[in-house]
Amino acid sequence: MNIPDSIQERVKKEIDFFCKSLPKEPKELYEPMRYMLALGGKNLRPSLLLLTCKMLGGKINDAVPAAIAIELFHNFTLIHDDVTDNSPLRRGKPTVYKKWNLNIALLSGDALMIKSYQELNKTPAKYLPAIFQVFNDAALKVCEGQQFDMNYETKSKVTIDDYLNMISMKTAALFSASMEMGAILAGASKSNIKKMQVVGESLGMLFQLKDDMLDVFGDSAQTGKQIGGDIIQDKKTFLLLKALELAKGKTKAELNTLIGNLVISSSEKVERVKKIYNDLGVEEIANKQMEMYYTNAKKALSSIKTPEKDILLALTGALLERKK
Amino acid sequence: MNIPDSIQERVKKEIDFFCKSLPKEPKELYEPMRYMLALGGKNLRPSLLLLTCKMLGGKINDAVPAAIAIELFHNFTLIHDDVTDNSPLRRGKPTVYKKWNLNIALLSGDALMIKSYQELNKTPAKYLPAIFQVFNDAALKVCEGQQFDMNYETKSKVTIDDYLNMISMKTAALFSASMEMGAILAGASKSNIKKMQVVGESLGMLFQLKDDMLDVFGDSAQTGKQIGGDIIQDKKTFLLLKALELAKGKTKAELNTLIGNLVISSSEKVERVKKIYNDLGVEEIANKQMEMYYTNAKKALSSIKTPEKDILLALTGALLERKK
Repeated sequence: MNIPDSIQERVKKEIDFFCKSLPKEPKELYEPMRYMLALGGKNLRPSLLLLTCKMLGGKINDAVPAAIAIELFHNFTLIHDDVTDNSPLRRGKPTVYKKWNLNIALLSGDALMIKSYQELNKTPAKYLPAIFQVFNDAALKVCEGQQFDMNYETKSKVTIDDYLNMISMKTAALFSASMEMGAILAGASKSNIKKMQVVGESLGMLFQLKDDMLDVFGDSAQTGKQIGGDIIQDKKTFLLLKALELAKGKTKAELNTLIGNLVISSSEKVERVKKIYNDLGVEEIANKQMEMYYTNAKKALSSIKTPEKDILLALTGALLERKK
Repeated sequence: MNIPDSIQERVKKEIDFFCKSLPKEPKELYEPMRYMLALGGKNLRPSLLLLTCKMLGGKINDAVPAAIAIELFHNFTLIHDDVTDNSPLRRGKPTVYKKWNLNIALLSGDALMIKSYQELNKTPAKYLPAIFQVFNDAALKVCEGQQFDMNYETKSKVTIDDYLNMISMKTAALFSASMEMGAILAGASKSNIKKMQVVGESLGMLFQLKDDMLDVFGDSAQTGKQIGGDIIQDKKTFLLLKALELAKGKTKAELNTLIGNLVISSSEKVERVKKIYNDLGVEEIANKQMEMYYTNAKKALSSIKTPEKDILLALTGALLERKK
């Protein structure tokens, strides 16, 4: 996905090394970590961190610990989120708490978070306090975002702003922190650090909106997920909230009938909600929103002149066009 | 409990300040933190950390962040352990997952761990990498110890050494880390840092063995716990493992009948197991084991000449004699 091979390979190598270096016992703690890390994520966050560091003239070696730490932290959140969201599958495989059990998901997740901090502490000492702060602040935002997401499941009145604020915490915070840390580790100026934070935030928002889109308009053979999962679960995504905002008269009544409807089949529900989305043009609106984030990222990058800038822009474009 | 008022008050003040500084929203994350911290623990770990720092000539202010971090981390482990151990009560009050629910216990626990790292990052930069490492290593040991503890519930053959190794991870690691960090933050010599690690380890072992003893021989009005809880749950404590080691003939048969026995009442089970403990003299043996840890601590402290040394020894003695 438009990430230079050298960076992709470095991230993969470091994560493999991490997995191989894990203790054998207690296996209930360490096997789930290896399992999660082998599920084949995109390694987007660590790649963005290293790419940013390189783009701003830093040394990749200085940035590797923070890159691995952020990927480990991300995987910790997946293990615990699958418990709170009661998700049976991730990337087509059983989630940790389904494959093992709740206690193992809880404790191996905790241990993985601690492992992420152990990696972070390999950061050169002169950068450590700043990196540690960015990492912690983002980590806490992810938890807050996950809690708001859970709250919104039962809250009747959720606005688009609530939703954008929630995903900015739950998803964009780690993207933003990755690029901010990459800049700090390159010894970048305050102004460039701030810019990278904005680029990361924009990429994260765009990434999450695209996730919402793929859930409805994607191809399950490519995404590896059931199409319309969010619709079936009545998840308050950008698409649903926008549709609720725009729908009037009969369409509004129809949409309200479909939300929380346990009588009709899942497939019928997905088809009918999708038709409303098409009638109201919410896909177009979401595309516009994503393009706005793309433009924001491009603008924040305008003063950067190194070759990695174009790689980053191409990557952002690829996130916008991705099919999975 | 023999901790100087100035240190006790400082810890209390800092924890109060921490609670007051927590955000209001999402309340599902932050209320459980305030609730746990208000349950009134002994604040032993942060007090030991500050006392050690003072004993070795350090500045209390330098050590406060690590002290608060270790207490927050300890409270995070309690929130998650109460889930894995399925415990309804802690210090006579409902546990977080009983008062709220599993998801809230999971996520507020995660967030509290992150908050502990945020506090840790307030440590003066020159000490940060060393402090961060000790903290992480101990944190991971706590998780490993908890996992071994869970494994031993169903494992048929557990030795006294397995048990001592498990509590050295689950309980003593945080005590040891507290005193090691106190020494590092006082700028102590390598040799003194090592000694404080040994003292902390000894105190932690003694503390956990005393916990096992109070479960059987304590007074529920003072401990706030049901007497014999470990016996009822067939927990493989030092006392039970020692009894299994020593029992012969009819006593051994009786003990094996009682373990896992769901037919007799809890109170009868507790009485009969307690009688075996008395017949075999396991209380005496456990006392000897605890005294060994006391002697170890005293020996490691022999070269220290500051007044806080006597406070620390008195505190160790008080842990040995405690009724709750």
